[in-house]
Amino acid sequence: MQNFVFENPTRIIFGQGMIARIGSEVSRCGTKALFVYGQGSIKRHGIYNQVISSLNEANISVVEFPGAKSNPVLSHVLKGIELARRENVDVILAVGGGSVIDTAKTIAVGVKADPREDLWEFFTFKKKIRGAIPIFTVVTVSASASEMNSTAVITKEEGAQKLIIVSPFIQPRSSVLDPTVLYSLTPEYSAYSAVDIITHMVEGYFNNREPESPLQDRLVEGIVKTVMESTKSVLNDPQNYNARANMMWSATLAFNGLTTAGMGFVSFPAHMMGHSLSAMYDIAHGAGLSITLPGWMIYAMPKNPSKFARLGREIFHIKEKDDLKAAAEGINHLKRWFSSIGSPIALKEVNVSEAEIGRIAENASATALVWGMEAYTKEVISEILRLCK
Amino acid sequence: MQNFVFENPTRIIFGQGMIARIGSEVSRCGTKALFVYGQGSIKRHGIYNQVISSLNEANISVVEFPGAKSNPVLSHVLKGIELARRENVDVILAVGGGSVIDTAKTIAVGVKADPREDLWEFFTFKKKIRGAIPIFTVVTVSASASEMNSTAVITKEEGAQKLIIVSPFIQPRSSVLDPTVLYSLTPEYSAYSAVDIITHMVEGYFNNREPESPLQDRLVEGIVKTVMESTKSVLNDPQNYNARANMMWSATLAFNGLTTAGMGFVSFPAHMMGHSLSAMYDIAHGAGLSITLPGWMIYAMPKNPSKFARLGREIFHIKEKDDLKAAAEGINHLKRWFSSIGSPIALKEVNVSEAEIGRIAENASATALVWGMEAYTKEVISEILRLCK
Repeated sequence: MQNFVFENPTRIIFGQGMIARIGSEVSRCGTKALFVYGQGSIKRHGIYNQVISSLNEANISVVEFPGAKSNPVLSHVLKGIELARRENVDVILAVGGGSVIDTAKTIAVGVKADPREDLWEFFTFKKKIRGAIPIFTVVTVSASASEMNSTAVITKEEGAQKLIIVSPFIQPRSSVLDPTVLYSLTPEYSAYSAVDIITHMVEGYFNNREPESPLQDRLVEGIVKTVMESTKSVLNDPQNYNARANMMWSATLAFNGLTTAGMGFVSFPAHMMGHSLSAMYDIAHGAGLSITLPGWMIYAMPKNPSKFARLGREIFHIKEKDDLKAAAEGINHLKRWFSSIGSPIALKEVNVSEAEIGRIAENASATALVWGMEAYTKEVISEILRLCK
Repeated sequence: MQNFVFENPTRIIFGQGMIARIGSEVSRCGTKALFVYGQGSIKRHGIYNQVISSLNEANISVVEFPGAKSNPVLSHVLKGIELARRENVDVILAVGGGSVIDTAKTIAVGVKADPREDLWEFFTFKKKIRGAIPIFTVVTVSASASEMNSTAVITKEEGAQKLIIVSPFIQPRSSVLDPTVLYSLTPEYSAYSAVDIITHMVEGYFNNREPESPLQDRLVEGIVKTVMESTKSVLNDPQNYNARANMMWSATLAFNGLTTAGMGFVSFPAHMMGHSLSAMYDIAHGAGLSITLPGWMIYAMPKNPSKFARLGREIFHIKEKDDLKAAAEGINHLKRWFSSIGSPIALKEVNVSEAEIGRIAENASATALVWGMEAYTKEVISEILRLCK
């Protein structure tokens, strides 16, 4: 086990009916909230009203900032910072999925930064985040775990860069997770959520510095099995409470630091390439990952066949004794599974032609440098992307 | 999944060499620390010097309070409270295992309570804890998870009652876990630690309100497998770093709220009876549990054979198809395993005769009432204890 520091103070308030508590949670830290949300689906599904009524009851005054979109963009964040400053809010409430929460987190950082600073330098790790106003969340799409971690992902339109910030300051104070909110999620987005969670798990499982990690490996395998089971259940019956609840809590545990504690430096090559697909072609995050993860696995498997074989045996009950064959079978099973839930597994399915590979690799290799993954040169990334055709 | 609130803000600082950080951690909350420890083994093993030098470096003045023993007692805690008040310390540092940490936690509560209050009323849940001074820990025995939870267990000598307090105020601020500290643990205490961790896991697995808990069940199974593997390794090679590290982190995750989140009210009947054995006969906590857990399992198994069978199949690879037979085989395997690591599995092994059963049941049934486990009457407990002979 590698040395580590683990600290995750977010209060999770989980279950049906819990949105009613968000007002009193927010009132722990302030009286005037910037209420960040997305394209308005929370109004159609009754979540908006629940949140507003809880905030009213707690005497929180509200400044609304709707409009965050999937693959949230920096220009929108900048507008939010301006509004938060002008209105002098003391707390931010995000009601949405990862895109909304990450928009809120970045606004929270921006409000505390010097107005003359270039916010993007926090994403390129040139500058260190020095503060943020308190963040609360109500989760409506479960995948990113942003509700219980200290990262946020934003796309800068100019140059199509999709990068992250990391800081304890952007760890949410409290997050409300009501599984019934997921009932209205489309089959498509339920599937993309599953892909995202599984990719968080699988990337950490393979890309770490700890050769012997029996505990973390089992936690990962347990979460992956649960997510796969639950996904099938929610696609058959979108209002299956327990399946939605298991997805929701699995998503949070999958990327809140638990499974990577003790693993040393963990890298996320499938996310790196997936981010480029999202930034360049506005492909949904999960849809990009179900293309890049299997390609990366085919590329990386020969260097560590026994661990890839273990995953195949644990998750897909593969009986094959030979590690290389079992590993390859496992990857094929995973691709078929992604396909079976309706997530694309090849670039051509999202209309990205082979001719684009060079450009994508160029974009992703810039991310690789920022993320300390120098081995992923443009050439290596191109090689992997050719396995994703 | 049952509704839940999960919040665990303790900062874990894990790994070889990390004791050097305890001074700067303590200095987050104070400048004068009550340094609580046990019978002095930390001096023999060099831990005391590491702690003192780190505290000195951080300019923390130190008031020592040694003498906590296994199954820590209220009379000792009261002396600690007196000392802490007289010296006006602003923070408490526990360096030890669960007994030391729980002594420190109870002192921290006592310092903030009204001096005229009966401290024991916090343990009988007649009064609510209203505050505590900040607690930090350096763990030297890994089993209780007290380093990352909000409970403490103390024995009141008069009446031989061993009860718990629960409060977010006693959640440690930071805990240092250095696996090399466990190198000097005797085989006996390494085994007892394993029994305690496994019992935390197994009790939560069976005694909850959630009939469908795929995620939590898998987390539990993963931790139990890891602890069993690691125990065998540390008994063969006490200085196996990775095995000690896996034990240490497993112990913390096994009782920090993670595996019981979403399970509703969880009860601990084997602990309840084990506490009576410890309070009445000063039997080591783990040694008591390896007697009471299998007895309780034999008693409870017929009501839920499929789940008991699942445990046997997952942990001991039992192939038997019939649930009742597989469940019984599993319990036998667990008993044999406890025995193989040197922990007792029958009352007679610790020189407690059958004639004592009535008295033990009397004692345990009082605990059952405090813990809201009314079904465990004196008669039921006697029936179980006869399965532990």
